[in-house]
Amino acid sequence: MKSFRKELVIHTPTRRAFVNITPEVEKCVRESGIKEGLCLVNAMNITSSVFINDDEPGLHMDFERWLEKLAPEKPYNQYAHNGYEDNADAHLKRTIMGREVVVAVTDGKLDFGTWEQIFYGEFDGKRDKRVLIKIIGE
Amino acid sequence: MKSFRKELVIHTPTRRAFVNITPEVEKCVRESGIKEGLCLVNAMNITSSVFINDDEPGLHMDFERWLEKLAPEKPYNQYAHNGYEDNADAHLKRTIMGREVVVAVTDGKLDFGTWEQIFYGEFDGKRDKRVLIKIIGE
Amino acid sequence: MKSFRKELVIHTPTRRAFVNITPEVEKCVRESGIKEGLCLVNAMNITSSVFINDDEPGLHMDFERWLEKLAPEKPYNQYAHNGYEDNADAHLKRTIMGREVVVAVTDGKLDFGTWEQIFYGEFDGKRDKRVLIKIIGE
Repeated sequence: MKSFRKELVIHTPTRRAFVNITPEVEKCVRESGIKEGLCLVNAMNITSSVFINDDEPGLHMDFERWLEKLAPEKPYNQYAHNGYEDNADAHLKRTIMGREVVVAVTDGKLDFGTWEQIFYGEFDGKRDKRVLIKIIGE
Repeated sequence: MKSFRKELVIHTPTRRAFVNITPEVEKCVRESGIKEGLCLVNAMNITSSVFINDDEPGLHMDFERWLEKLAPEKPYNQYAHNGYEDNADAHLKRTIMGREVVVAVTDGKLDFGTWEQIFYGEFDGKRDKRVLIKIIGE
Repeated sequence: MKSFRKELVIHTPTRRAFVNITPEVEKCVRESGIKEGLCLVNAMNITSSVFINDDEPGLHMDFERWLEKLAPEKPYNQYAHNGYEDNADAHLKRTIMGREVVVAVTDGKLDFGTWEQIFYGEFDGKRDKRVLIKIIGE
């Protein structure tokens, strides 16, 4: 069994953003030399997400509005977590969008449907955050 | 290390439906010959889900109503994604229900609790959609 | 390839609770002797969750209030599932929080970001429930 590990560092200029990290993950699969296996991609911070969906700007606007409706950022004092922090909403938004994805590796490539793309979802940005890529297989 | 891959094709006659795919996944585990490992089951389309819950029709009605409340299908023009499409709600519903499950394989079987069953959740049906089953182990 | 399996039994005195199970999972990784691999931790019951977030009591209060808003326990008769049961809300809450996490194992340890902790989320407690830990790797 082979294994491969890499961290990505992501720093978004805004509090919230979606970043397509598929090319970086594909590069890791190539570097790993693994032909058949599983690829885990997860946020290492608890106010961000890794998820799979469509690379379509309209949909990303819909995600932003929808998440603000389900878990609004303000008023900050609606959340018990926001004593010294202001990011309780980011913990809730990340829960909806998910911490991680597991993707099959087949024949040395991410085994994807036509429109699947891997996104990093930032909900409390403006600072360095980390994503972990771990691949195991043969 | 062994690996196994199979695609299921699912075509539901309605826009939304829940389909129990546990027997198909169990068959794959048997075919794979893998005794100890991990089994990934994921939707290859971004408007459908794979999730684990109870095979109980009342609960499935509750899921349908609840998802419609959290991410209503109509009016279509409430979503920026719905320029040429009408399925933005399906992307959001799938986000709540999840893209994938990872199930342990132990002693050649899906290592399940008493009531765990694997479902395909369709949110934009009436056409062929795909589910990927990937198993690795020994 | 090595594999390791263990079940935890969790019994909370209240209907809903969050329990930090990180030390138990870390113990399993040590016992497994696996240095590089993947660790699956999943609820074996369909009214509970395993998720990763912050070990901060204020945030857990926020989760409790937020989940009650998104999927209220009462009135029980709002749910079709609640014929002989009263736990439909627990199935929905668990869907938001997630069934499972997959964590990388690197150099014999859970490969975590600074604040990542693994929680068991109980939404229909007062009885024995089970969590599965399955680790594969080398």
